[in-house]
Amino acid sequence: MTEITFAVLGTGGIGRRTLEVSQHADGLVPVAACDRNGIAVDHDGLDVDELLAATEGNVAGDGRGDTAGPDAATDGGVEASGTGGGVKQTGDGAGVVASEQGEPTDTPIDDVIAESEPIDAVLIALPNLEHDFIPRIADRFVDAGYAGVLVDVLKRSRVIDMLDERAETFEDAGITFVCGAGATPGFLTGAAALAAQSFVEVQEVDIWWGVGLKSGYEDNRGTVREDIAHLDGYDVETARSLSKDEIEDLVEEHDGVLEFHDMEHADDVLLERAGICDADDVSVGGILDVRSDEKPTTTTVSVTGTTFDGETATNTFQLDDDTSMAANVNGPALGYMKAGVMRHRVGDDGVYGPAELMPRF
Amino acid sequence: MTEITFAVLGTGGIGRRTLEVSQHADGLVPVAACDRNGIAVDHDGLDVDELLAATEGNVAGDGRGDTAGPDAATDGGVEASGTGGGVKQTGDGAGVVASEQGEPTDTPIDDVIAESEPIDAVLIALPNLEHDFIPRIADRFVDAGYAGVLVDVLKRSRVIDMLDERAETFEDAGITFVCGAGATPGFLTGAAALAAQSFVEVQEVDIWWGVGLKSGYEDNRGTVREDIAHLDGYDVETARSLSKDEIEDLVEEHDGVLEFHDMEHADDVLLERAGICDADDVSVGGILDVRSDEKPTTTTVSVTGTTFDGETATNTFQLDDDTSMAANVNGPALGYMKAGVMRHRVGDDGVYGPAELMPRF
Repeated sequence: MTEITFAVLGTGGIGRRTLEVSQHADGLVPVAACDRNGIAVDHDGLDVDELLAATEGNVAGDGRGDTAGPDAATDGGVEASGTGGGVKQTGDGAGVVASEQGEPTDTPIDDVIAESEPIDAVLIALPNLEHDFIPRIADRFVDAGYAGVLVDVLKRSRVIDMLDERAETFEDAGITFVCGAGATPGFLTGAAALAAQSFVEVQEVDIWWGVGLKSGYEDNRGTVREDIAHLDGYDVETARSLSKDEIEDLVEEHDGVLEFHDMEHADDVLLERAGICDADDVSVGGILDVRSDEKPTTTTVSVTGTTFDGETATNTFQLDDDTSMAANVNGPALGYMKAGVMRHRVGDDGVYGPAELMPRF
Repeated sequence: MTEITFAVLGTGGIGRRTLEVSQHADGLVPVAACDRNGIAVDHDGLDVDELLAATEGNVAGDGRGDTAGPDAATDGGVEASGTGGGVKQTGDGAGVVASEQGEPTDTPIDDVIAESEPIDAVLIALPNLEHDFIPRIADRFVDAGYAGVLVDVLKRSRVIDMLDERAETFEDAGITFVCGAGATPGFLTGAAALAAQSFVEVQEVDIWWGVGLKSGYEDNRGTVREDIAHLDGYDVETARSLSKDEIEDLVEEHDGVLEFHDMEHADDVLLERAGICDADDVSVGGILDVRSDEKPTTTTVSVTGTTFDGETATNTFQLDDDTSMAANVNGPALGYMKAGVMRHRVGDDGVYGPAELMPRF
């Protein structure tokens, strides 16, 4: 497979780490990155080390994704970090513009779109606190005539449906959209698809994750906010409206440990899409500890099914507790991006979940 | 992806079960199958139920793969079973010809090749007791001008090298060759590639398998023979020259339980090819119990690596003891076949191992 060029929308925790991990891969060339205030483009390849050094601890967003605020009209609400919090610097000088490669802009997404024609793939590393935020970004790429691959790392079942409604539009436009390509649902539904290979019928997929986020907390407030929306008594609107202090109070109430059950996580619809099992047969839960870097529980994917010779069995995939959430997001996201480029090149455009990109019968 | 048509060379344990499992998949249409004595072809799709019923317990081979015998001149040594043993019927009336769809032939492989032009993929479900047996079959497809996908389920490192020497020939011919696509190396190296997604560098891959083969023993003598060749003091030549009684004596000596360490299994070269780690960092071993259907040990893939943030960790994939070898061969083989067809359709011909077909960065 020839070289793949890609852009990253959002340079928060996920965006930054994806740029970093891409340096360990052959044939992946980051050529554009943007945040709320700036954009960096070099079609021969960004200087990732310089970009990361210049923006380290220097992000502009607050983890809310200002899609309804004044920025929405111009840039669709792109924010610098996708995560926000703990910034060394805020305002006009923050984020990508602090890099030698950065240029200030009021319209970062439009600017990336303007450069996108020769770019193979665009990773949307933004929080999605409004359900239709990422679908609307996709619409803008369609409207601009982009033909290529869009990848997100979202986690909400209903957003997949919104993208699915656009499947024909994407096919006509020549866009392959890979959704949910991060750690979960991406990595773990991929593992479920692999584990399902022993079976002709799958009865149950159980996904249970543990995240210890002490040192990563500041960089991943957007993700924490999204998780809070899964707690009993919260939804995306209430989670989004919480102030930083209110989030701290909530975390305090739970002694820093948030436990989730029956999450509306995209894993269910993605596994159904891939033909692995019915969405109802998928359960997702986990424990988030924001006061420790130790994982509070071991991330485990269990797939129970029936073999062609009539046995019922459970295959399991476990991530070592010493693999961080960040480590488990970025490798898979880039892997699925490459797999999406393959689909695009063969002309199979449309919407894909990670499990659909796995070899499977 | 549109419908995929495929042929199966060999209707022993693996060939038969692959035909059976394909009935559970969408868009996979078996159109040809052959053994030593016969061939069945229907480009609209074989009646798999009839074929399997007619040939149940009715196979012609003896698990040796007569590539050097008198048949070699005409059919390259294709045998009915790929496994042999315990046949209800032998000789001219055995195997595929017992099916309503079967026609007798002295040149089964040539007959499949003659029908191959519209066939997307050919699964070579034959034992490979001579290292160059499967490579030589591939040569015949090349010579006949076949353009499509060839898949094998072989297990020997050095055969991969032989195929690799042909990579340019395959590319020129328009052939995508997927090698080692069964349970091991196929399923388990795929799992290793998945588990490696947490890491920017992999230090060690440990593959440890358990197989309980009591009820499947008669149908899988070819596989047992191949495994014996991995024991200390044996190689492919000595394993091939063993009589059935000698194999029984050997099994008796070990009380039916054969344990293998540091096997020359294709996993190592396949993982190196895929860029996961060096071949030297892969260790393969396992326990085969031919007197019990219970697995003597749990099949486990352990991948130890370093994350981008500097942690060393081990991810693991485990197959439930209740998944049989057969269940773990056939699903992956068909899955990798589909992935191979994708590569072929995008024009990326050549030689692939299973791990190369996984989404990965």
